[in-house]
Amino acid sequence: RINADRLWDTIMEMAKIGPGVAGGNNRQTLTDEDGEGRHLFKKWCEEAGLEMGLDEMGTMFAYREGADPDALPVYVGSHLDTQPTGGKYDGVLGVLGGLEIVRTLNDLGIRTKHPIVVTNWTNEEGTRFAPAMLASGVFAGVHDLEWAYDRKDAAGKRFGDELERIGWKGDETVGQRKMKAFFELHIEQGPILEDEDIDIGVVTHGQGLWWLQVTLTGKESHTGSTPMPKRRNAGLGMARVTELVHEVAMDYQPEAVGAIGHVEIHPNSRNVIPGKAVFTIDIRSPHEKVLDEMRARIEAGIATICEALDISFEVEPVGHFAPVTFDKDCVKAVRDAAERLGYSHRDLVSGAGHDACWINRVAPTAMVMCPCVDGLSHNEAEEISKEWAQAGADVLFHAVVETAEI
Amino acid sequence: RINADRLWDTIMEMAKIGPGVAGGNNRQTLTDEDGEGRHLFKKWCEEAGLEMGLDEMGTMFAYREGADPDALPVYVGSHLDTQPTGGKYDGVLGVLGGLEIVRTLNDLGIRTKHPIVVTNWTNEEGTRFAPAMLASGVFAGVHDLEWAYDRKDAAGKRFGDELERIGWKGDETVGQRKMKAFFELHIEQGPILEDEDIDIGVVTHGQGLWWLQVTLTGKESHTGSTPMPKRRNAGLGMARVTELVHEVAMDYQPEAVGAIGHVEIHPNSRNVIPGKAVFTIDIRSPHEKVLDEMRARIEAGIATICEALDISFEVEPVGHFAPVTFDKDCVKAVRDAAERLGYSHRDLVSGAGHDACWINRVAPTAMVMCPCVDGLSHNEAEEISKEWAQAGADVLFHAVVETAEI
Ligand SMILES: NC(=O)NCCC(=O)O
Ligand SMILES: NC(=O)NCCC(=O)O
Repeated sequence: RINADRLWDTIMEMAKIGPGVAGGNNRQTLTDEDGEGRHLFKKWCEEAGLEMGLDEMGTMFAYREGADPDALPVYVGSHLDTQPTGGKYDGVLGVLGGLEIVRTLNDLGIRTKHPIVVTNWTNEEGTRFAPAMLASGVFAGVHDLEWAYDRKDAAGKRFGDELERIGWKGDETVGQRKMKAFFELHIEQGPILEDEDIDIGVVTHGQGLWWLQVTLTGKESHTGSTPMPKRRNAGLGMARVTELVHEVAMDYQPEAVGAIGHVEIHPNSRNVIPGKAVFTIDIRSPHEKVLDEMRARIEAGIATICEALDISFEVEPVGHFAPVTFDKDCVKAVRDAAERLGYSHRDLVSGAGHDACWINRVAPTAMVMCPCVDGLSHNEAEEISKEWAQAGADVLFHAVVETAEI
Repeated sequence: RINADRLWDTIMEMAKIGPGVAGGNNRQTLTDEDGEGRHLFKKWCEEAGLEMGLDEMGTMFAYREGADPDALPVYVGSHLDTQPTGGKYDGVLGVLGGLEIVRTLNDLGIRTKHPIVVTNWTNEEGTRFAPAMLASGVFAGVHDLEWAYDRKDAAGKRFGDELERIGWKGDETVGQRKMKAFFELHIEQGPILEDEDIDIGVVTHGQGLWWLQVTLTGKESHTGSTPMPKRRNAGLGMARVTELVHEVAMDYQPEAVGAIGHVEIHPNSRNVIPGKAVFTIDIRSPHEKVLDEMRARIEAGIATICEALDISFEVEPVGHFAPVTFDKDCVKAVRDAAERLGYSHRDLVSGAGHDACWINRVAPTAMVMCPCVDGLSHNEAEEISKEWAQAGADVLFHAVVETAEI
């Protein structure tokens, strides 16, 4: 078993960097706070005797030698970046849970046959730079390195420039590492485990996603003196698309979800009819067919809405991943570990995207989930218990050690 | 007749200060650009022999002596502040049209019996600091001076502090001046005059307005892993209220308008269900009864919408004026001037709010309107012809001179 107190203290120590305004964290990717968090993680890794690697996407790899130097390493990890109003556990539990495994192995004086590498993937959240899971996507060959560098935040800053600015751009070619397996521990971010009072989610699948960035162009004009029939109101168009996305998702739920989380209207003045609205639709389903149908219905609906309002539109996909089926053997290793340790468990489909979803394309991969209070995540009030963290990290420990072989 | 070329050149000179990105202006109230515009106006006024006054709200008064020093002055003017993506004429035509009157009187060597005062009212637009027409509202005794100073912009800056910062806070008590009359020339900002090919709008009434700032509070959570029935989506609530405001306005139009021009959602991240939405509803009608009915229907509708979505709400009025009936004699002076000069004219209800609407409470007041292309305003593409400007300023000139007596 891992040392739950040490894991917990380590998480709380990390949470001091980039504190939020309501008990959570704002440690968005490639900010100074992200840099500070990386330094702390590096210090801890070095204290645990790990050797640091850093690739051109800023992903950190902390290497623990195996007994057989030629054996492929088992990778474990997640991300240290957070939402602007994020929780202390989303991502962090997976990275520091990986570190805790190594510390426990050190305590026990165990050397696995295969090396173990604890990983911190850059820009998992995708808030500042879309899409999410950017570095693991480049690692898996889904995105081009240069394309990733060219992603821009709302202020127009380039990902590549910001990575250099915070001093965490490495030399290592992205994706050159070969893995025996990859395991990611993560909080569920949904309510199922807590509702059913179950300790461990054995993640068999992940939902697919589309992020569709929509730009509606109407005409700025005066809210007081423009007659109703003369209006070309892009904000009204955005409202109707918001309702449409909700309706489509409701038609397919529980096999789908949909919402709009990001909106900008121009010029955003109380007495100006919005001439432009830019917003991102987020739709997800574990079934590719459902996802495709939703996208088609939404795009058709946008055209109808815009015609009625005499506004024009553009739809640009800014994020996508297909539904994922995780590796049978890795999933079995997780399930067996939970079973062996006596933790209650059930199979789960991940509602969120994770670095594991991309890495699954280039290495056998699985995920371990633990409950979170009220299923709440992407909220500073995100909460888990120390016992839940312990169960998740214990299962991760056993699955990793079994795979890395003693 | 006034000198149309000189008026036009003066407007174009002012438009160089705080240029927009698409041919218009961004000279928002109490910015450095506002300060620069004020200096230029002051310089022109002094060159025309006027004596400058400045009150505690930063309103500028440029005084031209009359033959009878005890006679009450005739005031004329509008505002030099603009929308963030505003036009070159909204407000500016009224201030510089006033200056042009004085220049023309100087050219003709005419001294009126009553003094003439050209006025630049502070913060007419209300974008940066709600409500609109703030300084004229304090002047008319509608708002308290300290309350006005406490208005905050989106960055939390106080009106009073920003007024001091740009160096345009005067000593004169606000509202101490007595006026024989107040005349305001303004572009129509609506399509009626152009559609009917009419030179001059004789403004008999102004619409009333409510600005209702709504805060919806739901719960931030993950867009992917929060099941549809568990969502408390403040952004969806905002979308429904946007549609509601539109429907209510459509029910009453053409005797009403309604829209939402300003919105903020939190945390505004693509993969976070909005936990909070703040936005301002703008509803208007020339009929108090209609305005009240609209407000009641909208507030009731918000309650229903929020109950269905399990979100809470607050509605705070941040701007209000009742419908206005302008002074019969002043209106007649405008109509007679148009008639005498041979300009086609019709009576109009102002769709927008104007400083004249507040001043009408403390002095006999009327407005002159000239057409603008496509009725477009609060848009950088706002346009008028030199001929339209000339007609408006000519009518203003004659109405003012008749009232100030030769
Ligand atoms: N786990 C997580 O919150 N990932 C962010 C990407 C997503 O929106 O699913
Ligand atoms: N004329 C004008 O645009 N005034 C701003 C106040 C309003 O929104 O009516």
